[in-house]
Amino acid sequence: MPHQTPVSPDPSDKKPIQIGLLGCGVVGSGTIRTLRESADAIERKLGVPLILRRVCVRDLNKPRAVELDPSLLTDRAADVLDDPEIDIVAELMGGTEPACSYILQALRSGKHVVTANKELVAKEGHQLLREAAARRLDCFFEGSVAGGIPIIRSLKVCLGANRILSVMGIVNGTTNYILTQMAETGKDFGVALAEAQAQGYAEADPTADVDAFDAVYKLAILASIAFHSRVPVDEIYREGIRGITGSDIAYARELGYVIKLLAIGRQRESGLELRVHPAMVRHSHPLAAVNDVFNAVLVNGSSVGDVMFYGRGAGSLPTGSSVAADILEVARGIRFGGSGRLSCTCFKDQRVLPAGEIESNHYVRIRTDDRPGVIAAVSTVFGRHQVSLESILQKQGNGSEAEIVWITHRTQESRIRAALDEIAALEVVREIGSWIRVEE
Amino acid sequence: MPHQTPVSPDPSDKKPIQIGLLGCGVVGSGTIRTLRESADAIERKLGVPLILRRVCVRDLNKPRAVELDPSLLTDRAADVLDDPEIDIVAELMGGTEPACSYILQALRSGKHVVTANKELVAKEGHQLLREAAARRLDCFFEGSVAGGIPIIRSLKVCLGANRILSVMGIVNGTTNYILTQMAETGKDFGVALAEAQAQGYAEADPTADVDAFDAVYKLAILASIAFHSRVPVDEIYREGIRGITGSDIAYARELGYVIKLLAIGRQRESGLELRVHPAMVRHSHPLAAVNDVFNAVLVNGSSVGDVMFYGRGAGSLPTGSSVAADILEVARGIRFGGSGRLSCTCFKDQRVLPAGEIESNHYVRIRTDDRPGVIAAVSTVFGRHQVSLESILQKQGNGSEAEIVWITHRTQESRIRAALDEIAALEVVREIGSWIRVEE
Repeated sequence: MPHQTPVSPDPSDKKPIQIGLLGCGVVGSGTIRTLRESADAIERKLGVPLILRRVCVRDLNKPRAVELDPSLLTDRAADVLDDPEIDIVAELMGGTEPACSYILQALRSGKHVVTANKELVAKEGHQLLREAAARRLDCFFEGSVAGGIPIIRSLKVCLGANRILSVMGIVNGTTNYILTQMAETGKDFGVALAEAQAQGYAEADPTADVDAFDAVYKLAILASIAFHSRVPVDEIYREGIRGITGSDIAYARELGYVIKLLAIGRQRESGLELRVHPAMVRHSHPLAAVNDVFNAVLVNGSSVGDVMFYGRGAGSLPTGSSVAADILEVARGIRFGGSGRLSCTCFKDQRVLPAGEIESNHYVRIRTDDRPGVIAAVSTVFGRHQVSLESILQKQGNGSEAEIVWITHRTQESRIRAALDEIAALEVVREIGSWIRVEE
Repeated sequence: MPHQTPVSPDPSDKKPIQIGLLGCGVVGSGTIRTLRESADAIERKLGVPLILRRVCVRDLNKPRAVELDPSLLTDRAADVLDDPEIDIVAELMGGTEPACSYILQALRSGKHVVTANKELVAKEGHQLLREAAARRLDCFFEGSVAGGIPIIRSLKVCLGANRILSVMGIVNGTTNYILTQMAETGKDFGVALAEAQAQGYAEADPTADVDAFDAVYKLAILASIAFHSRVPVDEIYREGIRGITGSDIAYARELGYVIKLLAIGRQRESGLELRVHPAMVRHSHPLAAVNDVFNAVLVNGSSVGDVMFYGRGAGSLPTGSSVAADILEVARGIRFGGSGRLSCTCFKDQRVLPAGEIESNHYVRIRTDDRPGVIAAVSTVFGRHQVSLESILQKQGNGSEAEIVWITHRTQESRIRAALDEIAALEVVREIGSWIRVEE
């Protein structure tokens, strides 16, 4: 053999592998429940048990979703970070600080790290991975995107020999639940949001979800892995779902579409197209049937073609499933070798295309005067901006006002924006009611 | 740190990692094309290039789908198996022998193995994995199930902390294509099969596909991983699609179902329920929209809940994508350590339930005399065997003959079999037209 066989850890070392948790909320309790439920199988796979050694929480007296021996609990992070017996730190607190400092400290103490913190990984992932790689430690974050769906490791390993051409996903369960409710019951956005809040599917402050910050973080993570290039979150085009009306959803249905909040990353010749916004997709599209709080990510690779991953994108146990799998995989590295072999793969430095260079089809709903010549006037402006039209749908006007829906062919966003500015100023046009991208 | 850090391979060893292929047909050429397309990215990920060193084929003069330097080709397997420079052998010949002997020989020479051979892995996987584990070598087989869909590694690693409760998949593209054609065009089985053969989607001898041997092999592999127990292929209940008629497909549609060839594995308290057969699933079921040659596997895990994997289940490039990813992962182990850490996890010895203990709902189409009392007579027999009925659909008879369709509630297969034997003997019954399981 030309390559030396890696020297493995001493197999007679039967010491358990010990875990420290930072945070024990929704994800932390799901992780603990998952590890407990599978404790026997995990021990068979590893040859040693995985032991939960310490859990750091903000408030020692708060009731929790899992039973924990009080001696495990602490409210001092140092009790986890400085404990030499802890091999793996799972950061499940969320937010950028102090989570980032804690993770760096854990790595510098030689501990492997697992996190489900999408905001932190999206913003500081490169730094965490660099720190881990320098020490041949693992830093895994499967739980940070799409809950229980194994999309990170699939992109890194299972599709690792493909050139990824695009990722397109429904990665926010709250907005997908709201849009599903609006489509199924005809409710307007505000009502559907209030109900989602009442049912615990949306936060009291729903900004992160409905204004698509959450989906932007997830896209940044997916795209950086898929396209081997760091993605600054503020270069991703972002548009939330507040502007979606029942009327648009009804038109979409009539035209054979459903409206979804999509996170889209596409490798274009001139750079990366990265965007999160509501979009219409055909009823036959694989993502169209992804309803309620479910998530799905559709990947197109040079060899594999289309491949889709579907499941629960949030929640205690599904996210706990991903965190626990990461912990198990870190533990495999400790027991059998290979720690630190999956690290940052952002070896390219790709440009993110400005929003104006995004290409898609478009749906435009325009309120106009109800009189002859309106379609001609609007179509002329579209034509002047080289926006070609696929279909026009005009509803019976009321004698005074009419509503006309236009679907364009694939066109650059800068063109449609320029055309709409001009159309809005036409004397016969009362309002651009809405403008929604249409994805093939 | 309580655990010693694994000693990694010497990072200054910049020798390329070399691959030998056994077989260069559909999968072999897709593997080579995938590795070539991503050669730069793979080298960046590994730190050294992956080199194709030797390709063993049956006929040196046969035209191939990929260009190969003639010096790479050989028709002697020993030129691959005995070459000390080859690190990884990819067995892409198919069939049990000589593939099995070649793989064992490769492992015994210290070479890692990748294979896409479903029949061999289903029948002899335990032996291959034992041999690999004893030498801390990798033996990967992602390409053996569902082509480009990363289901093996997802079960082993990404869902590795779940207790898997069920796997349910469309894992044979040929039969799915035929059933999709039958549903969309109303063609009968024979016509749809002939067309699939003409288009290269079905073999001249279609037995392996339409009689579901292929799907049985794949289920054996999936179930052994999911349920941690060896699955003898001949203990899996098997029924192909030859008996599906256009009339059943039409009834299914009327009742809100589609008919798919499903491979089902379910963890029951008393053992494993394992079966491959045509089944009706509701239009809203995640597998119902999987059409043409696409495959999908729906997994239910204790923490993750339902998670589905969808993509191209066969073909040169999709399967090549999985084989190439396996090769890349083996190479990571060679470069960074951790070889041999994913081995056999069949640490349980579970009983496979006999067919009579399978539980599902059932669709039964019965041709009867067209006269009063028929429904009562048949229903009485069902009742006597404790088969409870969900719905009955009677079409207008022609005065002489009638056709009645029954959907039962969930029931043990032994009961429905006994009931149907008795019903077939009723004087008013002319024929049990068909009997198809219905899955929730």
